Amino acid sequence: MNYIKAFAPATVANVACGFDIFGFALDEPGDIVELRKRDEPGIIIKDIIGDEGRLPREPERNAVSVVMLKFLEHIGSTQGVEVTLHKNMPLGSGMGSSSASSVVGIFAINELLGRPLTQRELLPFAMEGERIACGAAHADNVGPSLLGGFVVIRSYSPLDVFKVKVPDELYCTLVHPDVEVNTKDARYILRNEVSLKNTISQMGNVAGLIAGLMQEDYDLVSRSMVDVIIEPVRSILIPEFDHVKQAALDSGALGCSISGAGPSMFALSRGRDTAERVAKTMSEAFGSVGITTKSYVSQINQQGPKVLETA
Amino acid sequence: MNYIKAFAPATVANVACGFDIFGFALDEPGDIVELRKRDEPGIIIKDIIGDEGRLPREPERNAVSVVMLKFLEHIGSTQGVEVTLHKNMPLGSGMGSSSASSVVGIFAINELLGRPLTQRELLPFAMEGERIACGAAHADNVGPSLLGGFVVIRSYSPLDVFKVKVPDELYCTLVHPDVEVNTKDARYILRNEVSLKNTISQMGNVAGLIAGLMQEDYDLVSRSMVDVIIEPVRSILIPEFDHVKQAALDSGALGCSISGAGPSMFALSRGRDTAERVAKTMSEAFGSVGITTKSYVSQINQQGPKVLETA
Repeated sequence: MNYIKAFAPATVANVACGFDIFGFALDEPGDIVELRKRDEPGIIIKDIIGDEGRLPREPERNAVSVVMLKFLEHIGSTQGVEVTLHKNMPLGSGMGSSSASSVVGIFAINELLGRPLTQRELLPFAMEGERIACGAAHADNVGPSLLGGFVVIRSYSPLDVFKVKVPDELYCTLVHPDVEVNTKDARYILRNEVSLKNTISQMGNVAGLIAGLMQEDYDLVSRSMVDVIIEPVRSILIPEFDHVKQAALDSGALGCSISGAGPSMFALSRGRDTAERVAKTMSEAFGSVGITTKSYVSQINQQGPKVLETA
Repeated sequence: MNYIKAFAPATVANVACGFDIFGFALDEPGDIVELRKRDEPGIIIKDIIGDEGRLPREPERNAVSVVMLKFLEHIGSTQGVEVTLHKNMPLGSGMGSSSASSVVGIFAINELLGRPLTQRELLPFAMEGERIACGAAHADNVGPSLLGGFVVIRSYSPLDVFKVKVPDELYCTLVHPDVEVNTKDARYILRNEVSLKNTISQMGNVAGLIAGLMQEDYDLVSRSMVDVIIEPVRSILIPEFDHVKQAALDSGALGCSISGAGPSMFALSRGRDTAERVAKTMSEAFGSVGITTKSYVSQINQQGPKVLETA
């Protein structure tokens, strides 16, 4: 194989109650990378399309390529690669944009070189890309983007990640308002201490969401999509948050919260029709104050990254 | 029916990571109550056996009978009842002693009067008994004692309780050392604030324990039986805690922690043989410093309270 074109999905992290531990993958949008082997060693970023020139072109500073550098060093390869990245989602959007780049990069190079590592073994590399992009090696976006499905990060040290089965009729509505929140800022405003009372509430909702998903109990999923710790703080960074959330719930969503660090918001619904209706009313709610949006409706993507083309 | 004799099981609350939200029921020990209808109104405690005279004999101050007073008031009955309570577990033991009394009391009176309320409707009454006995209306012991199985209290306000399926081969070892911890003290020493980092760790373990139980993944159950919030504080009240816990793990237990507020300790194991071996080594570890113990090995009791005899 001399050429590969691959895709990795956007993701919703936190999922209301599961700050830093829950995330799931979407069918769309997602980043696409094209890799072509070079005769000389070294990684070159040939082009990045769709980032409005905002991402670094130096291989060691871009999430898509830094993971490849680490990977090549790990397997002791001097293979040279030319990279073209198609950014299909906005930066700093709360949709796991940098994670999709890290994952598509590490997935594609592993495939291009004959799959020396398993998918799970790629996770620490993808997390390293996340560290370059946002300062901390979180796994709640790269985990689901790489592994597909609904992913739980039980522990970071040692890294312990598992998947949870979700109901077939579960659909996600993701709405991106055209305002930007810096992930580092969104983390900065969080308090370092949580009341024991709120910790207990959040634990109850975490248990309820996992059990609700696994038991296909949509009502329990709905009751458990409550975040008493992060959402009350971060939602102040998102204009019209309360209004948009209420619109989603009024349209039949099981629950609605911030996607990752925001400003994107997500809702879960039973059935595609409801999820489409929720997308419409959430977008209208943002639109009522003049904020334009882009929305996506998708099942939970069970596959993760995929090969689109090889040569 | 003029007479009923009923049983309600001891319970393990908290279950390592699930402070105030997790609990499960045991096959033994458990409290037994005998109720006999009286011709005159009013509740009389005729006898309490096994409490060494330490429990109050006034009906409005004892967990077993205060729940009956609330129940009779609720259904508008003036039925008189004579109560005999057999306490089959030590007080302040962390085995849900007061909860077993509340549950057996409310269960028995409901049966005696022709079951005017469903089992679930009895829960708030049993919680009221818990308030009398230990100052707060917790549900992590009365919930499993009344409903059987592994119970999650997702929320206290509104009360939202659900059950989680557990693997068939899951066995509990419960070891009661002959030292006493007052539940009010055990709660008093807890900090009111938790670091966000520890909250995230605990949430990961809560998710892991629920998924591990439901997926019958014993290894995930084992990895998730970690409590970074409560156990480090409360374990200092239990002599030889670290030593006893290590003995349990060395003997093959999946995990080991404090049962409720202690001083009893519990372990979960795969299979009865392992659970029996764990009971032996935990008891020996307490015994090495001259502390006598009583131990119980049991599957998770799925039934909750039961009628033993009627007339």
